[in-house]
Amino acid sequence: MGEGQSRREILAGSSAALLTAALPACGRAQEAPKRKLGYAIVGLGSYATRQIMPRLKDCESAKLVALVSGTPEKLERFGSEYGIPKTHRYSYANYDRIRDNPDIDIVYVVLPNSLHAEYAIRASQAGKHVLCEKPMAVSSAECEAMIAAAKKAGKKLMIGYRCHFETYNRHGIELIKSGFIGTPKLITSEHGFNAQPNQWRLDRPLSGGGSMMDIGIYSLNAARYLTREEPFEVYAMESTDKSDPRFRNVEDRIDWQIRFPSGALAMCASSYSSNHNNWRATGTEGWVGMEPATGYEGHQMWTRKQGRTEQVALPAPAKNQFVAQLDHMAECAMGGREPIVSGEEGLRDMRLIEAIYRSARENKPIRVGGA
Amino acid sequence: MGEGQSRREILAGSSAALLTAALPACGRAQEAPKRKLGYAIVGLGSYATRQIMPRLKDCESAKLVALVSGTPEKLERFGSEYGIPKTHRYSYANYDRIRDNPDIDIVYVVLPNSLHAEYAIRASQAGKHVLCEKPMAVSSAECEAMIAAAKKAGKKLMIGYRCHFETYNRHGIELIKSGFIGTPKLITSEHGFNAQPNQWRLDRPLSGGGSMMDIGIYSLNAARYLTREEPFEVYAMESTDKSDPRFRNVEDRIDWQIRFPSGALAMCASSYSSNHNNWRATGTEGWVGMEPATGYEGHQMWTRKQGRTEQVALPAPAKNQFVAQLDHMAECAMGGREPIVSGEEGLRDMRLIEAIYRSARENKPIRVGGA
Repeated sequence: MGEGQSRREILAGSSAALLTAALPACGRAQEAPKRKLGYAIVGLGSYATRQIMPRLKDCESAKLVALVSGTPEKLERFGSEYGIPKTHRYSYANYDRIRDNPDIDIVYVVLPNSLHAEYAIRASQAGKHVLCEKPMAVSSAECEAMIAAAKKAGKKLMIGYRCHFETYNRHGIELIKSGFIGTPKLITSEHGFNAQPNQWRLDRPLSGGGSMMDIGIYSLNAARYLTREEPFEVYAMESTDKSDPRFRNVEDRIDWQIRFPSGALAMCASSYSSNHNNWRATGTEGWVGMEPATGYEGHQMWTRKQGRTEQVALPAPAKNQFVAQLDHMAECAMGGREPIVSGEEGLRDMRLIEAIYRSARENKPIRVGGA
Repeated sequence: MGEGQSRREILAGSSAALLTAALPACGRAQEAPKRKLGYAIVGLGSYATRQIMPRLKDCESAKLVALVSGTPEKLERFGSEYGIPKTHRYSYANYDRIRDNPDIDIVYVVLPNSLHAEYAIRASQAGKHVLCEKPMAVSSAECEAMIAAAKKAGKKLMIGYRCHFETYNRHGIELIKSGFIGTPKLITSEHGFNAQPNQWRLDRPLSGGGSMMDIGIYSLNAARYLTREEPFEVYAMESTDKSDPRFRNVEDRIDWQIRFPSGALAMCASSYSSNHNNWRATGTEGWVGMEPATGYEGHQMWTRKQGRTEQVALPAPAKNQFVAQLDHMAECAMGGREPIVSGEEGLRDMRLIEAIYRSARENKPIRVGGA
């Protein structure tokens, strides 16, 4: 919640400089020709068709060239809409033939969680770079296999942590790094929504878990990108009404505390039964926070320091988070650099999610090691 | 943090009715003459002299009649300022002689925490009603002794949980009770400030502990008054920089999770190294939150429901939280009713604080039972 009296834009001077510094290293030389790499989208669900595919036309380094779906009607509809020739439309049966299509440089896996590992690994084996939605997979063993497959293929692997490309979240990271809040002491982050019944997210064989495997990862990842530290201990409490038919085999809520080497603590919430979307980082000198924090749009940021709460207004970015993410993957693939949110980033979160689940199950704090 | 776009007053209709319903039961018949009970203030520190004593003149059922201090200069200065005759000024040496002063009905103990039990019990033994600052004492055993002493004397014992008398906090309780947020699922509450060095709060023999025994109790009590439930399990993480000279023998930060029988969870923070002052209750239908939540003044409240965040503006109350608290104690004493924040309320928090400390020390969740 915020404080309404004294709001003004704080973007000026050093704050703007911070934002410039925050642009991702793209690995693309300024003088290079503006070649565009081709994306194949695997899985034509709501997120792929409503959020990803419409943005590819705005990319400077990427374009949509192929579609993969198990539903012929979807291939026909979206293939036609995006001008994808029949030669570039794949089913899951002939998916591996992407190997023979040189127009496809990058495969973006937007399938239910439990299918991420298989389709990412097969893409690596087909010699393609891989962008995979989060959570990276449903176990750390799967994540490790994905990393190994990409490495063996000599191709890049990136996880779809789009907040790392979102202007306000990036500004928050830079503000904290600059010392604006002093020494960070507490991160809070809550993410949740009221899950609709009868969807793959509530079906453990497809989702791998409940809210923690979905919206909860935003709270976890925020705690890590805001502190830029790796936690060493976690404790979690689960609360699920098993009489609610939505939660027969996945958890509703799971809240956790994590402890960072600096002494900073984080308290995070994940929910399928109430709406939450925020983070705040509080330090010895003040705080910076966002709400909504990690949605597709409408981000809002506040800071508090020396007794003043102010809303932060940043200029509209040249690229929104979706476009910036798609271009970053393409530019890393071209430039041979590691994406800022690589497979290792996904693996770190997955190890923590496993520790969070274990802590909730065994009802004790769990030590977690470095990657 | 809040959201600035759509704010308007929501106080109307049912909301106003809720507020009216929220006024404490005073136990005083409407037709009774407006007699004022006499308070003795024990301990003339900053809180007593700046927050409590100036408010007694605004009470309808209470008045200031006596002072107790170990510092003759303070007795002289404040005795003179408030017109308290020398016969009504006491040192700690002759404190027990309050027994012989019929003008004193209520003793308000505003001493460092570790002295609460002794001075409250002696006041009960002197036949006086007792209002004692929070935390009630420094152990649950002390709290039990205080309750027993008041009971034996046939006098009332109340703890200074002033938020229970503050308009916005009361409105929040009523909103939740009315179902405004649906089923409560998560309470978050953070309280903290940057502790100045060299004060009794940082001296364990006087304070009984660090931030948890001071500002942290606001987070804990809020979690309980917002849910109106008693938790059954707690887990806490402490984080204290022992190289900071302020924290040689008390904790800096302690954050905890508690679990309620309904399935609601709470995540609470307590700090002596950063500023925090908020609570939020999120349910299946929306949330209500405050920031600042529990200060002396300047409270702000927001609600969010059906995608709209709105600031709540309540009319100024007839009595502020200090006056309402002082009058409530007096009216309960006159009417023979239990205060809404009795010794039992303080004991419940103290048992939880002991469990929080034990959880942090042993690094495991602790089961807590009913009172």
